[in-house]
Amino acid sequence: MSNTLLQNIQYPSDVRKLSLEQLPELAKELREFIINIVATKEGHLGASLGVVELTIALHYIFNTPEDLLVWDVGHQAYPHKILTGRKDIFHTNRQLNGISGFPKRSESIYDTFGVGHSSTSISATLGMAIASKLKGEYKQHIAVIGDASIASGMAFEGLNHAGVTDTNLIVILNDNAIGIDPSVGALKEYLTKATVGIKPRSNNIIEALNFNYFGPIDGHDFTSLIDTLEELKNSKGPKLLHIITTKGKGLKQAEENQIQYHAPGKFDATTGNIIPKDNSGLPPKFQDVFGYTILELARKNKKIVGITPAMPTGSSLKYMMKEMPDRAFDVGIAEQHAVTLAAGMATQGLIPFCTIYSTFLQRAYDQIIHDVALQNLPVIFCVDRAGLVGADGATHHGVFDIAYLSCIPDMIITAPADEIELRNLLYTASLGLENPITIRYPRGRGHIREWQQLFQKIEINKGKVFQKGEHIAILSTGTIASNVTSALKALNSKIGHYHFMCIKPIDKELLLEILEEYPTIITVEDGVIKGGFGNTIVDFANQHEYKNKIINLGVPDHFIHHGSVDELHDICNISSQKLQKIIKKHLIKI
Amino acid sequence: MSNTLLQNIQYPSDVRKLSLEQLPELAKELREFIINIVATKEGHLGASLGVVELTIALHYIFNTPEDLLVWDVGHQAYPHKILTGRKDIFHTNRQLNGISGFPKRSESIYDTFGVGHSSTSISATLGMAIASKLKGEYKQHIAVIGDASIASGMAFEGLNHAGVTDTNLIVILNDNAIGIDPSVGALKEYLTKATVGIKPRSNNIIEALNFNYFGPIDGHDFTSLIDTLEELKNSKGPKLLHIITTKGKGLKQAEENQIQYHAPGKFDATTGNIIPKDNSGLPPKFQDVFGYTILELARKNKKIVGITPAMPTGSSLKYMMKEMPDRAFDVGIAEQHAVTLAAGMATQGLIPFCTIYSTFLQRAYDQIIHDVALQNLPVIFCVDRAGLVGADGATHHGVFDIAYLSCIPDMIITAPADEIELRNLLYTASLGLENPITIRYPRGRGHIREWQQLFQKIEINKGKVFQKGEHIAILSTGTIASNVTSALKALNSKIGHYHFMCIKPIDKELLLEILEEYPTIITVEDGVIKGGFGNTIVDFANQHEYKNKIINLGVPDHFIHHGSVDELHDICNISSQKLQKIIKKHLIKI
Repeated sequence: MSNTLLQNIQYPSDVRKLSLEQLPELAKELREFIINIVATKEGHLGASLGVVELTIALHYIFNTPEDLLVWDVGHQAYPHKILTGRKDIFHTNRQLNGISGFPKRSESIYDTFGVGHSSTSISATLGMAIASKLKGEYKQHIAVIGDASIASGMAFEGLNHAGVTDTNLIVILNDNAIGIDPSVGALKEYLTKATVGIKPRSNNIIEALNFNYFGPIDGHDFTSLIDTLEELKNSKGPKLLHIITTKGKGLKQAEENQIQYHAPGKFDATTGNIIPKDNSGLPPKFQDVFGYTILELARKNKKIVGITPAMPTGSSLKYMMKEMPDRAFDVGIAEQHAVTLAAGMATQGLIPFCTIYSTFLQRAYDQIIHDVALQNLPVIFCVDRAGLVGADGATHHGVFDIAYLSCIPDMIITAPADEIELRNLLYTASLGLENPITIRYPRGRGHIREWQQLFQKIEINKGKVFQKGEHIAILSTGTIASNVTSALKALNSKIGHYHFMCIKPIDKELLLEILEEYPTIITVEDGVIKGGFGNTIVDFANQHEYKNKIINLGVPDHFIHHGSVDELHDICNISSQKLQKIIKKHLIKI
Repeated sequence: MSNTLLQNIQYPSDVRKLSLEQLPELAKELREFIINIVATKEGHLGASLGVVELTIALHYIFNTPEDLLVWDVGHQAYPHKILTGRKDIFHTNRQLNGISGFPKRSESIYDTFGVGHSSTSISATLGMAIASKLKGEYKQHIAVIGDASIASGMAFEGLNHAGVTDTNLIVILNDNAIGIDPSVGALKEYLTKATVGIKPRSNNIIEALNFNYFGPIDGHDFTSLIDTLEELKNSKGPKLLHIITTKGKGLKQAEENQIQYHAPGKFDATTGNIIPKDNSGLPPKFQDVFGYTILELARKNKKIVGITPAMPTGSSLKYMMKEMPDRAFDVGIAEQHAVTLAAGMATQGLIPFCTIYSTFLQRAYDQIIHDVALQNLPVIFCVDRAGLVGADGATHHGVFDIAYLSCIPDMIITAPADEIELRNLLYTASLGLENPITIRYPRGRGHIREWQQLFQKIEINKGKVFQKGEHIAILSTGTIASNVTSALKALNSKIGHYHFMCIKPIDKELLLEILEEYPTIITVEDGVIKGGFGNTIVDFANQHEYKNKIINLGVPDHFIHHGSVDELHDICNISSQKLQKIIKKHLIKI
């Protein structure tokens, strides 16, 4: 690989030394650099390949980091990271103690705002632009946002406010008609009508919101980019530049199969072919247990509908969407809408399964309380990616849900221990409940290959004795149970293990038995300790005036960064090894 | 008062028996009825007066409750309530055990969706419309939404989805250029250009989102309303009717002073004059302690900025907005944007005070975690209307904040005991903190007239000994301290009382002292017990292996409805009387 230009670039100031004619060559080298590293180290590929020219052009024209640049979501920030001092550590991307896969303020002065969740960039950048105005500093403030992200409500709120300010805000709409899955919605259909050089209808949405509209231009063409950005740099007030790009640009397979190459895993850097994995003997992903099960259930019950905010592939709702497009809905990046839509459906007797990643469910917190729980509508929340998610890091860990849901009256909160329990719980919930229910399950695979067994109705609020014991009882919720099981197996000791699939309401009867029997109780959960399952056990014991020694294990009260799930479980003392260590310590005290 | 038409109306079927010519007379009687009752019983006036004709016309043309009608926010639902079976109990509006001030599913089959927070109607109604389609039922689904509410992100998400469906959705945009305070933002400026009969620019925002656009029509003119609604009733697909109305219509003062007559308190039904209250000797409202203090601080420190999402009057940020319009921002009903805007400002060294009602802060939960806390940006959240708020009821109680904020790392959570502590805390926070902070305070007035004393810097995480005692210690947080003080005074007993202004991080030193000294501890808070301040004390005691008896008092784990604040405190066992009773019970056990 020749990278005669890139090898001399550490910072944007080096980019600015190049001639305009050299930029296409730099783009080529940068693309190769990204492809070569992501091919072996994995990560988000397609989005970054799509903005190589844009990234170079932005740092070429604007005086970063003085001019402030915010990347929405941040999947596309690899070229930015490489050009802003992190080329030599880019191979540590997403690994424990390596750089983050997303822009992160603590990592670089060029990362002006930490991202990960979508549609925050306009608000954040407007805040910066207002600050500059108040401080009397003349500079530009640039938000780069995709067409999937700009359709989220929060982005509209930012535009709506920005349009009545006279701040130097530049919104760059990176329109490639896809987020992780293809973009949806009326705004997307509207944008689709725009092609390079042809401004969408004379009075367009953006202009209606008081923005100066520039474009659409070809986001891979340096001449257009440089000319237009120069013009934007020297104009005041809020403006939007509409650029049209191709996700995966420059790698044929990535352009042609944009969903798969969003984050393709390992691939051959030369051919672009994904290195095949033999998953045939592996247990299923939890998302697939959900995805296949809801389809099975929906075939038998016409009242069942499915909703995902922009994650048909990630949630595996795609199977149902394919077979019954009228009953499974991708509503775009619109968690608030997704939840209240489900509530509206529930009022009319439908049985809505609303599947949202734990970390994104935070976006719909008010709707869960106000539109679902307060009206006691039996919406079924399938909370995917619950617990520590690994390489995506702090912005994506689904660790708060038990805590923030536990204070909501009438909400059932559950975490099945394995694939079969998840499957039977989905079945049981589909039979009709009196209350809303949350079913949380993690990213990744379980342990049971033969999970597609006959449905069994289960008692939702009953805990389970996994193993009777003496002196010490481990109480776990969710799939972290398998770490406990493995730890106890290794220790070969008479310790009790109890599984509470239902966190709220808690199985009082079983819990009272445990409190009577075991002087020491250790709770284990893949979520924050503060306000979580373990705290619920402590609260229960206090209410019933038990004085057992209770130790809560889980995610401590600080943000956990990226690493593999196993590494992070270890950091949080909930890996099998750490559990063994902790249990041993308490065994000695008996 | 003659109400010869209204007296024969119990349900919409009775309205449908009238001739078109009789409707203006019914409107007149209905307005008088509302004015007469709200004049003495208080409540939301202006919004309901503005939709009298619309409400009559909707029930006249559509076959409610078969056709499904959803009112956004619900301030404007009084005419609807009166025409749908609740005329004879309308005088119990907002009182304990009386009807709710908002539509509520448990109250009437005509209340198809419970509301209170804004901008949910499009999503909910779309959910109903999709359900009808799947069930093969032909009917109409109508969302009535104001211009302030449609500018919120969630409404945009609903429109964006609806525009790609073929559901029978009718959105009625009730455009009166005001929410509680005047509407703001670019969309509002755009709408302002529309006048009756003149469609805003040929390609308008609504049409860009695939809606059929009808109007604008005069929302007080029955002929236009009836004709257009008839047309809408018989047309398929998503459509929007833009009507222009006057908030407070029919009561001169209410039309002229729309902010004050949103909820005017008692007034003379004949003259419309508000019955003057002599507030001169009263202690201040907590919102004014905030509003005047931030202005004082901002005069001295240029870095201070203020942000409110659509509550300049309710939060009292209006004082700062008036004196320094460049530094105090009403961003509209856009809590998500408000929080991330503040985060963006904080990155540039500004000191943003973001004031949001506790119940509405739920809308920005993800932004608090992801954009503020994760980046440890020192945004100052001034959380107004924290605790039980009284007559607004379950949709508006600010009781969850301690619980949902406590699990967020690096977030300081505080609740001052009185006006002076609030004032000094605002001052201390303005000096610059390392972390984001939440300052919660209740609706209504405090107890200290002479609150405008010299600023004192305080130690944020230090608890206070209010009264030393024996055997039993009461630990309270926030202004509920005054109920404890009054209870202890009445009991005249040697009981300890400790105030924890800072809930997170907790004052460990003081807490350890208390746990050593008092065998029985009673915690008191104006918020949910589950995950709240009291639970934090229990958790702390468990971690430090204390076995004291700890009783948590606060809002129990079910939704609390409307009533006066005192009545609700009593229901939750945190009124002075109930506290006395409970303390006595424990005194006997000593």
